[in-house]
Parts: sequence; C-alpha cells; structure tokens
Amino acid sequence: MPSEGGKGSLKPWGGRFAAETDPLVVEYTGSLGTDRRLWRHDIMGSLAHARMLARQGIISPEEADAIVRGLEDIAREIEAGEFPWRTELEDVHMNIEARLIEKIGPSGGKLHTARSRNDQVALDMHLYIREEIDALDQRLKGLQAALFEKARAHTASLLPGYTHLQRAQPVTLAHHLLAYFFMFQRDRERLADARRRTDMMPLGAGALAGTSFPIDPVSVAKELGFGGLYANSMDAVADRDFVVETLFCAALIGVHLSRLGEELVLWAASEFGFVEMDDAYTTGSSIMPQKKNPVVAELLRARASRVFGALVGLLTLLKALPLAYNLDLQEDKPLTFDALDAVKVSLEIATALLETSKFRVDRMRAAAADDYLLATDMADYLASRGAPFREAHLATGKAVALAASRGLPLRALAPAELKTFHPAFDEGVLEILSPEAAVNRRSSPMGTGPGSVKAQLELARRLLHA
Amino acid sequence: MPSEGGKGSLKPWGGRFAAETDPLVVEYTGSLGTDRRLWRHDIMGSLAHARMLARQGIISPEEADAIVRGLEDIAREIEAGEFPWRTELEDVHMNIEARLIEKIGPSGGKLHTARSRNDQVALDMHLYIREEIDALDQRLKGLQAALFEKARAHTASLLPGYTHLQRAQPVTLAHHLLAYFFMFQRDRERLADARRRTDMMPLGAGALAGTSFPIDPVSVAKELGFGGLYANSMDAVADRDFVVETLFCAALIGVHLSRLGEELVLWAASEFGFVEMDDAYTTGSSIMPQKKNPVVAELLRARASRVFGALVGLLTLLKALPLAYNLDLQEDKPLTFDALDAVKVSLEIATALLETSKFRVDRMRAAAADDYLLATDMADYLASRGAPFREAHLATGKAVALAASRGLPLRALAPAELKTFHPAFDEGVLEILSPEAAVNRRSSPMGTGPGSVKAQLELARRLLHA
Amino acid sequence: MPSEGGKGSLKPWGGRFAAETDPLVVEYTGSLGTDRRLWRHDIMGSLAHARMLARQGIISPEEADAIVRGLEDIAREIEAGEFPWRTELEDVHMNIEARLIEKIGPSGGKLHTARSRNDQVALDMHLYIREEIDALDQRLKGLQAALFEKARAHTASLLPGYTHLQRAQPVTLAHHLLAYFFMFQRDRERLADARRRTDMMPLGAGALAGTSFPIDPVSVAKELGFGGLYANSMDAVADRDFVVETLFCAALIGVHLSRLGEELVLWAASEFGFVEMDDAYTTGSSIMPQKKNPVVAELLRARASRVFGALVGLLTLLKALPLAYNLDLQEDKPLTFDALDAVKVSLEIATALLETSKFRVDRMRAAAADDYLLATDMADYLASRGAPFREAHLATGKAVALAASRGLPLRALAPAELKTFHPAFDEGVLEILSPEAAVNRRSSPMGTGPGSVKAQLELARRLLHA
Amino acid sequence: MPSEGGKGSLKPWGGRFAAETDPLVVEYTGSLGTDRRLWRHDIMGSLAHARMLARQGIISPEEADAIVRGLEDIAREIEAGEFPWRTELEDVHMNIEARLIEKIGPSGGKLHTARSRNDQVALDMHLYIREEIDALDQRLKGLQAALFEKARAHTASLLPGYTHLQRAQPVTLAHHLLAYFFMFQRDRERLADARRRTDMMPLGAGALAGTSFPIDPVSVAKELGFGGLYANSMDAVADRDFVVETLFCAALIGVHLSRLGEELVLWAASEFGFVEMDDAYTTGSSIMPQKKNPVVAELLRARASRVFGALVGLLTLLKALPLAYNLDLQEDKPLTFDALDAVKVSLEIATALLETSKFRVDRMRAAAADDYLLATDMADYLASRGAPFREAHLATGKAVALAASRGLPLRALAPAELKTFHPAFDEGVLEILSPEAAVNRRSSPMGTGPGSVKAQLELARRLLHA
Repeated sequence: MPSEGGKGSLKPWGGRFAAETDPLVVEYTGSLGTDRRLWRHDIMGSLAHARMLARQGIISPEEADAIVRGLEDIAREIEAGEFPWRTELEDVHMNIEARLIEKIGPSGGKLHTARSRNDQVALDMHLYIREEIDALDQRLKGLQAALFEKARAHTASLLPGYTHLQRAQPVTLAHHLLAYFFMFQRDRERLADARRRTDMMPLGAGALAGTSFPIDPVSVAKELGFGGLYANSMDAVADRDFVVETLFCAALIGVHLSRLGEELVLWAASEFGFVEMDDAYTTGSSIMPQKKNPVVAELLRARASRVFGALVGLLTLLKALPLAYNLDLQEDKPLTFDALDAVKVSLEIATALLETSKFRVDRMRAAAADDYLLATDMADYLASRGAPFREAHLATGKAVALAASRGLPLRALAPAELKTFHPAFDEGVLEILSPEAAVNRRSSPMGTGPGSVKAQLELARRLLHA
Repeated sequence: MPSEGGKGSLKPWGGRFAAETDPLVVEYTGSLGTDRRLWRHDIMGSLAHARMLARQGIISPEEADAIVRGLEDIAREIEAGEFPWRTELEDVHMNIEARLIEKIGPSGGKLHTARSRNDQVALDMHLYIREEIDALDQRLKGLQAALFEKARAHTASLLPGYTHLQRAQPVTLAHHLLAYFFMFQRDRERLADARRRTDMMPLGAGALAGTSFPIDPVSVAKELGFGGLYANSMDAVADRDFVVETLFCAALIGVHLSRLGEELVLWAASEFGFVEMDDAYTTGSSIMPQKKNPVVAELLRARASRVFGALVGLLTLLKALPLAYNLDLQEDKPLTFDALDAVKVSLEIATALLETSKFRVDRMRAAAADDYLLATDMADYLASRGAPFREAHLATGKAVALAASRGLPLRALAPAELKTFHPAFDEGVLEILSPEAAVNRRSSPMGTGPGSVKAQLELARRLLHA
Repeated sequence: MPSEGGKGSLKPWGGRFAAETDPLVVEYTGSLGTDRRLWRHDIMGSLAHARMLARQGIISPEEADAIVRGLEDIAREIEAGEFPWRTELEDVHMNIEARLIEKIGPSGGKLHTARSRNDQVALDMHLYIREEIDALDQRLKGLQAALFEKARAHTASLLPGYTHLQRAQPVTLAHHLLAYFFMFQRDRERLADARRRTDMMPLGAGALAGTSFPIDPVSVAKELGFGGLYANSMDAVADRDFVVETLFCAALIGVHLSRLGEELVLWAASEFGFVEMDDAYTTGSSIMPQKKNPVVAELLRARASRVFGALVGLLTLLKALPLAYNLDLQEDKPLTFDALDAVKVSLEIATALLETSKFRVDRMRAAAADDYLLATDMADYLASRGAPFREAHLATGKAVALAASRGLPLRALAPAELKTFHPAFDEGVLEILSPEAAVNRRSSPMGTGPGSVKAQLELARRLLHA
Repeated sequence: MPSEGGKGSLKPWGGRFAAETDPLVVEYTGSLGTDRRLWRHDIMGSLAHARMLARQGIISPEEADAIVRGLEDIAREIEAGEFPWRTELEDVHMNIEARLIEKIGPSGGKLHTARSRNDQVALDMHLYIREEIDALDQRLKGLQAALFEKARAHTASLLPGYTHLQRAQPVTLAHHLLAYFFMFQRDRERLADARRRTDMMPLGAGALAGTSFPIDPVSVAKELGFGGLYANSMDAVADRDFVVETLFCAALIGVHLSRLGEELVLWAASEFGFVEMDDAYTTGSSIMPQKKNPVVAELLRARASRVFGALVGLLTLLKALPLAYNLDLQEDKPLTFDALDAVKVSLEIATALLETSKFRVDRMRAAAADDYLLATDMADYLASRGAPFREAHLATGKAVALAASRGLPLRALAPAELKTFHPAFDEGVLEILSPEAAVNRRSSPMGTGPGSVKAQLELARRLLHA
C-alpha cells in the first residue's frame, strides 16, 4: 500500500513483520547484484502474465494496459541506465514491481495476482537458460566452422598421431582437427536435448500449489514460445534440473576445449613446434624478453575447472533439499552466470585463435617421417600374408628393438635381417614404409585415409548447414 | 608366438621389450580386478569382429569358426567360474585372447587383426553403458509405478505444502508424490538421449587412425545393434563423453533420490510423524532400545555424494588429455561401475521403501489444519474483490500478525477486526478457511486441485505404459 | 621506454612482438577486474622490494626514494578512487608499474629489476591469503563467542538429542551448542596450520630460476613479516598449495555452517518450533502473508556449495600442470576471492543470527519429556544390576514395543509387566525416568551432564581468551 | 539374549522390532564388505574398553578376562581366514560382538556396556586414519629419498626451465627435481597437522550424550596412544573432519604426483626425449609394435581424479547433516579406503619409476643450448649497467625479434647491431651467453645456482633424517 510511504512499503511482504530487516541480511540474502541481468526476461514474463490476467478477466483491460506501458517504460529506463536500482528491494523482481507501482499507482500491485516469486524466478531462469543454450550453440557452430576450414586446408598435411603422447601412426591434420569437430557436434546435440527440457513453462505454479484464480497458463506459454507446461506445480518451483543439465553440457564443452587447449600448448612448445600462433593471440613475459606465451590456449585448458566447480556447486546445492522452494535455490545464479559466460567467451576466442594460427606443416611432416610409426603397417603386412596378428606383432617388435638398438630407422634394416624375425618378411615391406602410403591405406570408415576424411568433411559440411 | 612359451609369450606386446614388467607395475596399471565384469561385452564384440573378418576374407571361414567356438567355450568357462584369470595379463581383453590361443592355437592370434585394444575397450564400454542405461530406465519406471500407486491412493489426503520448510499452503499427498514422478520422468528422458549418443560403434578405429584391412564396420555395428558408427577414428578411441553423460544422468537421479530421502527422514521424525516405515526397512540402535531408524531413507540421501564424486573424478580425468588414447582413460571404470551400481540399488530399494511405508494421513491432516496456511487464500479473496494484490497481501499479513500475537488461528479473528485491515474483508472470508476448500480452489493446470491431479495421474499412467 | 609513447609502450613485454594484442585476448587473459583488489598487497611488496634493491646497491638511494614516494602516491590515488585503471595493461601489477613510470619517469622501470610477475603475483597472493586467514579466524572467534554466551545461558535447557533425526537421548542446549563451538575451534586450528605454510615468501624466485642480481630476500621477508623463504624458486612460482589449503579450510567451515544452518531451519519449522528468529533475520513471502522464512539459515546451509565448487575448481586447475608457472594459475583468483568472501560474510551473519534468536525452551523441554528417550537409561539400569548389556537392551526393547503398541509412555508400564521382560526390573526403574535425571547421570567426560558441560564451558572460555 | 536362538538373536537391536529386516536392506545398509578391514582396529579398541570396564568395576575381572581372551581368539581366527563373517550382522562390529558371545557366552554381551556403535565406529576410524597417515608419511619420505638421490646425481645436468611450456631459462635437473622434494615436504607437514587432529579419542561419547556408567576414558585413550579426548560427545560421534582433512591431504599429494606424472609423460615423448624409462616400468601396445608407453606416469597423472572425487563425495556427504550421528556417515568408508589406497600405491610406484628411469642429459643439454633462454640475462646485463629494467627488456626483446626473423641464435647478432637497440650493449654481452654461466649467476637464495642448490640439498638431507 504505497500510501503508507517509507521504505518498508515497497517490500512485498512487510505485513506480519514488526522489525526492519537487518542491512547485513539484506546484503546476504538479496540477489540484486546477480539477478539484475535477468531484467529483460523478467519484464517479458510479466508482460505475458499481465495480458493473460486481462484476457481471463482477472484484471481489467485498462489495468493491463497501464501495466504493459509501465513495464515498457521501465525497460527503457533500464536500457538507458536510468533505473533507480534499490538493494533493499532484494532482487530484480521486486525492484521492477515497486517501480511499476511508483509509476502507475496501486494498480501496479495487481501484476502479482495469481503469481509468486517462486514461479516468477523459475520462469525467468527458463527464459534465460533457453537463450544461453542458443548462444552456446551459435558459438559452437562458429568454432566448428573454423575447424572445418582448417581441416579442409590440411587434408594432405601429415603429422604423427599420438597415443600415450608417444608417436603412434601417421595421420592427416584434417583428420586430427575433425576429431574436435565431432566432439563439438555432440555438444550441440546435447544442448539441443537440454533445450527441449528447458522449454517448459513453470508460470502458474504459484508459490507451490497452483492458484485459485482462473488463469490460462497455456496461452502465456504460447506467447513466450514455450513448448509446454510443467505437469506439477511443486516440481515447477523446486526444479533446477534444466540449469544443472545446461551446466553439465557446458562442463563437457569445457573438457573439449581443454583438450584442444592442451594440444595447442604442446604444439606451440619448441619441442613440437607444430603451430605458430599470431602475435595478437599470445603475450610476452615481464622479465624474459624472448617469451611468446600461448596464454589463450592455456586459459582454454584452465577454464573447464571453473565450470566443473559450478557444476559441483549446483549439484551440491540441490542435494537433499525438501520440496518445494528453498532459498538455497537462489544460489544457482552466480554459479550459472559465471560458468556460462566463461564458456561462451572461451568458444569465441578458441575460434579466433584457430583462425589466426599457422600450422607448421614442415615440422609436422618431419616428425611423421619417423618410420617407427609404421611398425603397425609392417605387422599388418605380415598378417595380410597369413601370419596370425600376434606372431606378426611379435616379429615386428623384435625388428623395432634391433633398429632402436642401432639408433636407425626401420628401413635401414636389411631384408635378410627381417627374415630372421619372420619368414614372411621380404623386400615388399620396404615399399610400405612411407607415411603417405600408410595414411592412404587407412581407408576404412572413420580412418585417416583420404576417402574417409573426404566423407567426414562432407558430413561436417552438412552438419554446419543443417 | 606361443611356441616360445613362458609367461612373456602371452603378453600381446612383448617384442621390443628386453625386461619383464615389474609386478608392482602389473598391479598398478592392470585393470583385471575392475574390468573383468566386461567379459560378456568383450566376447560379444569379438564374435562379431571375427565373423566380419571372415566375411571380408581377412581370415578364413575355418579360422573364424574356430575362434567363435573358442570364444563360446570361454564364455562357458567364465560363467561356470572355471576360467583361469591371470593378473599378469593386464586386463579382461588379454586374458580372453590368451586363453583363446591356448584353446585353438596360433589362429587365435588372428582375432586381433584389424583391431586394437583402444577400439576394443571403447566398444566394450559402449555395450556396457547401453545396457546400464536400460537397467536404470527399468528401475526408474519401477519407482515411478510405486509413486503412481501411492499417489492414486492419496488424492484426498491433505498435508501442508512447505516452502523454506515453513508450512505454506495445503496440498494433497498425491500432488506431492507426483512431483517426484515427473522428476524421474525427466531422468528417463535424459537417459534416452544419452543412450542415443552411446549407441555409436567405435570398433574399426584401430589404435587411432583406422586400419589398412578391408573391414566392414557397418555390418559389425548392425550385428551388435548399434545405431551408427563414429565418424572419426581419433574421436572414437579418445571419447568417453557417453560415460560421463551417463554418470551425470545418474548424479541427477541421485539428487532426486536425495530429496525424496530427506523428506522421508523428516517425515519419519516424531516432530512430523507423517510416515511409518515398515520394520523391515528400518533398523535399530546398538544402545538405544527405542530407536527405529530410517536408515534406508538416510542412505538414499547420502548416495548422491558418491555419484557426484565419480562425476567429478571422470570430468577431471578427461580434462586436458591430448588425443588420442591415454591410459588415464582406463580409470573411468572403477568410478563408473561403482556409481552406477550405487544408483541402481538405490532405485530398487527406494521403490520397496515407498511400497511398504504407511503415510499417517491423520497426522498430515492435523498439520494441514493450521489455518495460517490459508493466508494466501485470504489475500486472494481480497484481490478477487478488486484490491490490488499488494494491498491484499499487506492487509492479510497484518491479520496474521494479530492472530499470531494472540496465539490463535485466523478464523478466531472477528470480521470487524479484519475490516480494520481492509474494507473488503467480510464474513465470506471465513468460508474459505478450510484446507479442503483451498485445495479444491487450486484447479489451474499444474495445481494441487482435484482436476489437475487427475490430469497428472492420467499423464503418469500414459508415461508408465509408453 | 616511455618516450616511445603509445599504448604499446606501457606493456611490459612488447619488444619482440610485431602485432598488437587482440582486444578479445586482452579481455580473456587480463585479470584486472579480479586482481585489482590486491593493490595494497602489491604496493606493500613493491615498497619492500625497492628498499632492498637500494640496500643492496642494485639501484641508487635516490631511485628508491622516488619509487617509494611514487608508490605511496599511487596508493593514495587508488584509495581516493582516482587511479586511472587501464584494462589493456592486463593486471593490477602492470597498472601500478606503468603509473609509477608515468609519475617518476624511466627510473620507475627499475622497480622490476630482479623480479618477475611470477614471483610478484605469488607474493601478493601470500600476503592476501595470510590476511584472509586472520580475517576468518577473527570471525570464527566471534561466532564461537556467540555460541559460548548462548550455551552459558542454557545449561539447564533440555531438548532431545537426535541421531538419524530420531529422538535419542535428552541433552542440554548448552551441550548441543558447544558441539559447534568445538567444530569451529578445529577450523581455527586448521587455519593456523595453513597460515604457517602460507607464511613463506616467494619473492626472489624471479621467473622460475632465481636472479643474477645480488638480492637479499631474507631482509624483504623480514620487512613483510614472513616466517621464512621458499627453498626452491621453481616451487615458489608454481605453488598454489597454500591457496587450495585455505580454500579447503573454508570448505570445512562451510560444512559446519551448513550443519548449523540445517538445524536452525529444522528448529524454525512449526513441527519443531525450537527457535524463534528475530524479524530482522527472516523475510516474508511475496504471496503468502503468513510466512516468516528462515532465509539466513537457508543460505548458511547453501553457501558451502560455492566453496566446494571453488575447491574443486582450484584442485582441477592445478592437476597435471608442468613446472613452473602456467597461466592457468591466474584462474585461482576469481575462485578464491568469491569463496573466501562468501565464508566471511556467512560467519558474520551466523553470529548475528544466533545472538538475536530466541530458543523456545518450553517447546524443547516438552519434546524431551518423551520418555522413550530414556530407554537407554532403562537398559543401563538393568546392566548396572548385572545383566549383560545385550540382554538389557533386548528386554527394554520389548518394553518399548509394548508401550508403543498402546500409545503410552514407558512410565505407564506396570512394574509387573516390566518384570516379564527381565527379572531385574523393579520399581526403582521408574525413578530414573526423568530427562533431568538422565542428563545428570551422563557425567562422564564429554557427556551432557552438568560437570562435563561446566568443564567444556571452562575450556571454551580459555580458548576464547587464548 | 542368545538363549532365544535364531538369526534375530544375534542382532544388537531386535527387541522392539516385529518383522525381520528385508535382505535387500541388509545389503543396502550393511557395510561389512567395506568395513571388514577395520577388524584389527575394532578389536584393539574393544580390548582397551573391556580392561577399563573392569578397572572401573563396571564388569568383573573374570568377565574382562573372558572378553579379552575371546577377542584375541577372534583376531587369530580372522588372521587365519577362518572367521565366519555373516552379512546379516550388518558390519564388522556386530560380527565380532556376536562371535564373542558365541565363544564366551552371555558375558560377551557386557562388552558393549557404556559404549555405542556410534562412538565405537568413530574410534575405529580414528585408529585407522592415524595409521594411514603414518603409512602415507613413510611413502612420501621414500619418494623424497628417490628425488634427493637423483638430484644429487644431477647438480650439473642442465635443461631448459619452462614457463607456459615455453623454454624460459636454463636450470639444473637437481633444481627441478628438488622443487618436487619440497612439495612433498609440505604434504608431510600437512599430514602431521592432520594427525594431531586425528589423535583425539571419541570413545566414551556413547550414542551422543555420554554415558551414565562411571567410565574412565582418559585411561583408554592412554592405552590406545591418543593425545587427548574430544571435549563434547555430540561432536565426537558426528565428526568426520579428520577423515576429510586426510582426504584433502591425499588430494594435494595427488596434485603433486599428477604434475610429476605429466612432466614425465612429456619428457618421455620423442619430441622432448629427456627421460628413458626402464622396460619394467612401461608397457607396449596390442597393435603397434614400436610403442613403449609411459603408463605408470600416465596413471600418476590420472589418479588424482579419484581422490578429488572422494573428497567431493565426503564433503557433500557431510553438508547439512544435523547432529549427531546419521547413517550417511557410514558412506565415508568406501570413499576413504579407495582414495587412500590409490595414493599409497601411487607413491610407491612413483618412487620405483624415478629410481629406475634414466635422464637423457645429452638431450636436455642440447635443448638448454638454445640461447634465447638467455634473453633475461641480456636484459639483466643492461640493467646492471644502469638501464631501467623496462628499457633493458624492451631492447632485448627487439634483439630477439631480429634474431628470430633470421632463424639464428642471439649470439649470431653483431655487437654493432645490438648497440642499435641500446647503447649499453657491448661485446661483454657475448660472454654471458652460455647456459652454464647463466645457471651459475643465479646464486640468490632459492635460485638454480650451485650454492643455492647445495643449500637445498643440505636442507633436504636434514629433512629426510629428521
């Protein structure tokens, strides 16, 4: 009742309270610093709610008009940076409602009819998360496009494929980069699934039990573009599964970025020397003048940690909470906002880093020339001539041991020496000892051979244009 | 080459090594204690691989037959507990292969043609996780059925709905239990999505780069019932996303069970007294003869912790791993097996606990009779008579404060007194002050009113029979 | 070399770079938004470093004087809010150094002699963490004082002690609150240990290998009040153990606060009704006028989650980082600052909440009157008369079952009935069936009896005044 | 009362229960599979408890003798593998007590006088953790000894020190390895602090409130070698801080091992080639005959993940648990046992791996010869001749850029060219461009210079023999 004046009158719940809230409590339990960024979502939801209230005859058309105009006016104020935010009003929702009442008088107090902050904040989070999922998807697609372009340019660039960080078999750089393309594709699919579960409207659940007003939540959901309603009001206000699922998707994106970041850090080391990053994407040292540090790649590797922390924090928050709403749920926001922001910017910068980096195909090719990487091909050679693979492997292993003891490549072994390890060895084996040949032979589906990589690129193109 | 005899000969990779592996290393890096349980999946995969090798002419039909018979024989040995497991053979895969060679001679060594342990272990994990997802789904459905039955029996049982663990508004027990039904429904949908992403076959990826043998992985995938192949071999052997996604689904199931467990612990406390658990589902104290402890509910609450731990462990494991395979990936198994087992048994026992528990509807109804829970209805009463909701809330708040100061229920306030708080208060307000009426009024979609609960039950029935 | 002008000239490492840093990279890798709060620590460290450089003849006394005056001037600017922070200068360290050079000319560039950002930032973190540990200790002591006062006031207030949230045995409120006192005491001891390990100075480690200048780090450590130096420069710049250890201490404080918060939430529920929180420490509902929500207690319970998340984040960040410095370490700050802030304010508000809450001793006493809580005493009665405890427990259990089946207290059982369960039961047992007597009997060390509680209070007083 | 016979009679709490426990509940809530390994600790505690009961006249000397003999007999049975473990008896405690009663008759039932499972299990965990801390300390010391020996052997072996995985400045291998020595030293100190907090006895706390029997817990603590008693019985049974603190120490050990593991994986890669691991500490590939995989180092890197998971699990378990004992606490054991086992064996194998690995000093020296690592020394050269360090850094940076553009070392730049970057450059600078000279110059405390490393070795020796 604004006519009573004073700060207390703005609070939505002062009636039964004799004493003012302690300022430290306002600071501790208030969330304005964090949830202010939900103002657009909050107003969007309130507009739809107000229109529905009028359609259902719960408020008059004139009241609805006033509310709508008031809210639009508030949106302008906020955008212009002129909105008088008041910490003592706890959160973004109450700031906007109190301002509405200031602007249009007591009928502003009708906006909250048939609504509670519990379903209101749930609605805002649904709108926000849905938007963030789309923003993540767009950035993932951007990164995929960068990977695709680089892959397309490097179908003939060879480098060692590694397992256990030991050189294993030669692969093409296209093949290596496409592995990341498909990781990020899974991330996009996972997000699309999370989006479906986010796309449910909680408004109308009230505090926890629904409302006695003749609301029409289906029409509100339609206006806000939701795919459906929650089935149960207690679930609707108590649920943050959609937030934690989105954080999990972000955590896996973080994992993929960290793997890419780690490889770029390795490849930028002198010892590998496979990549040259643009000056604009590296920084120097305050003390060592020669340093050119792959700082962006390092942070791509590091950032996953923050997202893991947020995920753990949110899971822990939800654990063992009784139904329905508890204030613990409010702590979802700082964790979520920080983690999603961290992933979004990481995706952007990963894209730019890739686009501007130059792969040193000479260094890669030189490393791939190490013919120990072709030992599998030697064993396969024997196997294809009838030797059981285990025998072939053992014989080749001995050949490798001999060459290694001499510090020489495999091709330096004499055919006669090879024959001592297995009778099926002959001169033909020398012909297979080129990395290009080895790559070309791996023409099975999924493999690094040209046909397979072409098919992967084709699939990637389709996915990018889906 | 088995003819060389000795322990070393069984190892799949001894050729280039001069020294024996240290026994502590065998223990440290071996995984037999953990991965032994994958024997069925491993044999299933090997059978399909052997048949394909023969179809493609890579091995002869006779060799394939011998391998198939050998593997079937091994399966019988393992089932009968007669298989000679050997720790020094590192893992389940090498135990089975070495045994096969013992049984059918050198041609057993042809099974590993065109295959690596890297894609083999990935295949086994895909088969295992796919099975586990189905097992989780079945148990979730069982728990949903128990919730459905209890809900159906309690559509007229009232209890206080709580927010902030303070009594908020009356709800029906059916409504409260259905909130859990829909949480677990989301879990099932999430698992179904994870299953789609698990249902991709990695076999054929080889060590990391594909193979030079003319394999036909598509036919293997068909035989093993997979929905498709990985697109990229490096991704195929480096990927554990499907495992961590399944663990995440399990973690959210854990969250839901922990919320249910917490509520059951609360409700079993004397102070609530809302539930009486069966003797068979509680235990006593070693010292306090009167105790009947809700131990099952406590562990339902606790178990989520282990799953969170496994999830964190696996995410951390994957962070910053370069491509393609690294032995770190082997540590996925103890974490995963333990967590999924913990969730499966928790779902079973939660079902049994619910089925055997008796809800004390008298105690619940008595608690719901507290008419402060109807303050919202009083405010709505004013609002529906034209008062802005904020005014109505404030006036009702003052009425509550007055009644509380007297230690009396709201219905003990005189209409005249009420009028001093708001002119729209009249005798009519007294008629709304029954919890049954309040529940009945909440007839909006999602609400606790009978129509909404009936619709929820109908939806639940459909989902159970889908 | 400032004479060159332009933005680039301010950067500490531009020499070998041809291109400007991309603005997105500046945003992504810069840390000014976060580390700005370390300005006092940074200046404190620089002052000590500059003085040492002069003492060792590495710079002239005049240069040192100019640097000191410049830094003091900068401190004044920052305090007054007049410092021109520049995001493009990456971090707090470079902002201050660049400003120093602006103020005092090229000799400002001598401050960084024999120092690297790597040891500089490590130093700042040590100074900051040391301070935070002290701040946490002070707040813990404040909370302990509040617990002590409440305990002192409630040595005769009885309530049920719970295990498994079932009433177990009567205890005094003093005893219950003192359990928390001693938890927080362990936190203080743990922090004191962490402080010892924080109290080591890294300055002088340079980038990673020490320096060729004739520095005297021992005198710097003395000036900054450090207990000692790191032994090894690579360890000194790569180490964040002291940060993660402090976060762990904070996480355990969070656990203790969450347990206290949970109990206060329970006790504030109508069903318990053991505590009445001050209006100033609760808030209402936007929709339910009767609600008085224990929001502070809920957030005390929730906040631990954020600290767990930060701890996980930091551990994950450090995992598998090669020596010595990597930019990943920079991400320690947002996690640490947020978590420590969250715990500090939680401690403050927990103190205020306790001080202003009223315990409802009437409700507690009524709950403690439930004489099933004395079943242990009945069994002990038998045991003290020679029955093996197991027999005594079984006989008492049967007595409880009989009384429960009648819905009556234990004292309503006739002595003759009791005798049927065990011959050693006689009228004497009725005398023990008062909660006060039961509490008084528990006079063993640690117990809830008056002597033990008095000793605990005495110990608590000593610890508070230590 | 054993005379009643039947399975139920063995249960310590059957009196008030009408129905048998469901077998699934026995499996779900029982902990025998896990806590069986605490049998020694359990018997040790029971022996001390029984002797005290007799000393205090609570049981007779004859009863105590029988109990002691019975327990000693049980210990022999367990050691011999002849103990009849019964899952239906829930846990190790009840198995031992039931067996005692079988052996010595009803007086065995007197052992549990003045004791509850709550303080009993707490006691066992204290005894176990204390032992594990000692076991960890011993293994840490072993690893430190290996580092010390390798360091002592490599005081003159140069390699590049890295920051951001870019070559930064030359260091000695001794210096690099000693960084790890001091990390593990902090771990030992941290464990020693945790041990002090573990070394408090909870026995005597009873279920939660102490006991009415005239016990003497101080004498029990003395017999069991504890440093003191808990002050408060509720805290004593509810506390698992000492477990989680030990897990945290283990997590940091895990971090340090993971950093070492990562470096060894890097150094074993062909691109670095700094280390040659013994055949006995590597394994091969099932498909690639040339592979020699650093599997031990990989698992050292990976294992931290499991410990992080356990730590998160345990923290989450404890969060928001009300006082005093809750069954959730039982879940501490699988997490703790697994994590501590994982760290213990990792420490052992890390020691063996280090001892058997050969550092390739030739490869290290060759990498250190890259004279860009001496750019800091060039800048210091200018600074020591009066140039502000910032000027010196900038000038050197330009020199590096010029050399890099030519693909030449710094020493290939002509003095005249250098002079164009800064007038203070002269021929003298060429003399400093050797890695040995650079290392020797870093003679400041903590640095990589010989004097500092000698002092570090001396300190390390003292710490090893402390």
